[in-house]
Amino acid sequence: MSIKKVVVAGGGVLGSQIAYQSAFCGFDVTVWLRSEGSIERAKPKFERLLNIYLSTLEAMKTDKSAYCRGLSKTADLSDEEIDSLKEQAQKAFDSLTLTTSYEEAADDADLVIEAIAEDPNQKIAFYEELRKYLPEKTILVTNSSTLLPSMFAEHTGRPEKYLAFHFANNIWAQNTAEVMPHPGTKQEYFDAIVEFAEDINMVPIKVLKEQPGYVLNSLLVPFLSAGQALWANEVADPETIDLTWRLATGAPNGPFQILDVVGLVTAYNIVIMDPRSNDPETTQGKIAAKLKEKIDAGETGINAGKGFYEYG
Amino acid sequence: MSIKKVVVAGGGVLGSQIAYQSAFCGFDVTVWLRSEGSIERAKPKFERLLNIYLSTLEAMKTDKSAYCRGLSKTADLSDEEIDSLKEQAQKAFDSLTLTTSYEEAADDADLVIEAIAEDPNQKIAFYEELRKYLPEKTILVTNSSTLLPSMFAEHTGRPEKYLAFHFANNIWAQNTAEVMPHPGTKQEYFDAIVEFAEDINMVPIKVLKEQPGYVLNSLLVPFLSAGQALWANEVADPETIDLTWRLATGAPNGPFQILDVVGLVTAYNIVIMDPRSNDPETTQGKIAAKLKEKIDAGETGINAGKGFYEYG
Repeated sequence: MSIKKVVVAGGGVLGSQIAYQSAFCGFDVTVWLRSEGSIERAKPKFERLLNIYLSTLEAMKTDKSAYCRGLSKTADLSDEEIDSLKEQAQKAFDSLTLTTSYEEAADDADLVIEAIAEDPNQKIAFYEELRKYLPEKTILVTNSSTLLPSMFAEHTGRPEKYLAFHFANNIWAQNTAEVMPHPGTKQEYFDAIVEFAEDINMVPIKVLKEQPGYVLNSLLVPFLSAGQALWANEVADPETIDLTWRLATGAPNGPFQILDVVGLVTAYNIVIMDPRSNDPETTQGKIAAKLKEKIDAGETGINAGKGFYEYG
Repeated sequence: MSIKKVVVAGGGVLGSQIAYQSAFCGFDVTVWLRSEGSIERAKPKFERLLNIYLSTLEAMKTDKSAYCRGLSKTADLSDEEIDSLKEQAQKAFDSLTLTTSYEEAADDADLVIEAIAEDPNQKIAFYEELRKYLPEKTILVTNSSTLLPSMFAEHTGRPEKYLAFHFANNIWAQNTAEVMPHPGTKQEYFDAIVEFAEDINMVPIKVLKEQPGYVLNSLLVPFLSAGQALWANEVADPETIDLTWRLATGAPNGPFQILDVVGLVTAYNIVIMDPRSNDPETTQGKIAAKLKEKIDAGETGINAGKGFYEYG
């Protein structure tokens, strides 16, 4: 199984990062976008990524803490090696092909990484159209965070070559990639994606069975819910809860520090998926009400400058 | 509120640590024990603590990483200051009074810290007897991990001066202390215990309402359960789950590394409290079965040299 041409469908936050990272690691990358408008919106994202990679690499010359594993598997680099990685970053940027054509994207593709909107109907429509053009060899993966590959496997026309491949934001730094099959995925394609993950400087996380939330969110969601329950029931304040977790486990961040990074809107969307949140007397109802109050006040997390904490 | 004489009831792992730490911080400490046999079993525990405090202090002279906040609120100490703390450790050891007499223990006590067995009947019998001798001024706290102070408040004869004060193991290093009232606790006694916690070099965690599991276990139990569920359902192996958590959150340990410290027997006792664990088809049933298999093989955690990982 040799992957050369990689197609990333979608130029959003993660689509652009996955495409650029793959190109940086030497793959021939085509980005499929829905419209000319999407192409125009994607271009500045790639420029921003180029600048991040160049400036991070430059910083690594003098500041060991600037090192990001997505940029190089080893931290021990000479200035010459870093300059060569900077050339690689520029070459990756120049090499990206952006297209709205299914046919051009599909042509000779070894791997298609679907990173379009989290909308089942849009995903189905995309798969149904794509399959008309895709060569038999192509492996197809979805970066979906919340939808399971078994929901779409039959629509892809290649269930045995279809699986989930889930990235975290800022993949050059947060470089885990969860690889997860559905019950019909063939082992050899799972293995090929694990290998591809390593080839693009990711740490592959092997999820052996279909699991909503993969590994990370399966841990994170109950942990953050437990913290929010203590807060919503007025058992302790966020600072105390975070302090307790940091002191007891040695972790750098407690649940409310993590929530500020995740964003309170995401936390709110998760809690209201629980039907108990409709009753204001339940813990879930109290969490939803308290989060909504903060969201309405613009305190949505670190990106807003204020969430549970203030950022300056 | 001035606390001078502190009585610790119980000479187990935590009772002995609380008593010795309080004496080390200058309090007049009496340890109440049930029998002459308990006194004989407690003595080597205090000798062990003296040795730990002396050797940790000595190590702090040359190794900054040996610093424990329970021994000194500041890490920046001269050799002379450390030697004076070593004298303090020896004096604390020599100063401890061990008794089986309720009367002697209760006499002029400002604070009684109950750290006897986690058995409601034993605790009630202890409180019912103790109240016959206790001066009106005495504050009474329980170190119970799993029982709530409201279960016992009326038996103490002083519900307004009764609350929970919960320590972690190895308190000289893990120095959080959770302070938790029941609905009848008066604020001034809650505040007095928060102050006392600071006086014995603890970081007081203010739990504002009665909450099973306090703050720490309210976070830890759902987090560890989520990790165990992924393992028991064969979604991923412990190493992968731990790696995912460490990489995504920057924490030093994932759930299975923490479980090895907590001990698999404790984890097993927690999961079998859930009635769903009786059904082998449920996640809880699978967790219980897989933990039992490891416990039966002697793989009970770090203290056994093997749990989810091997220690050598």
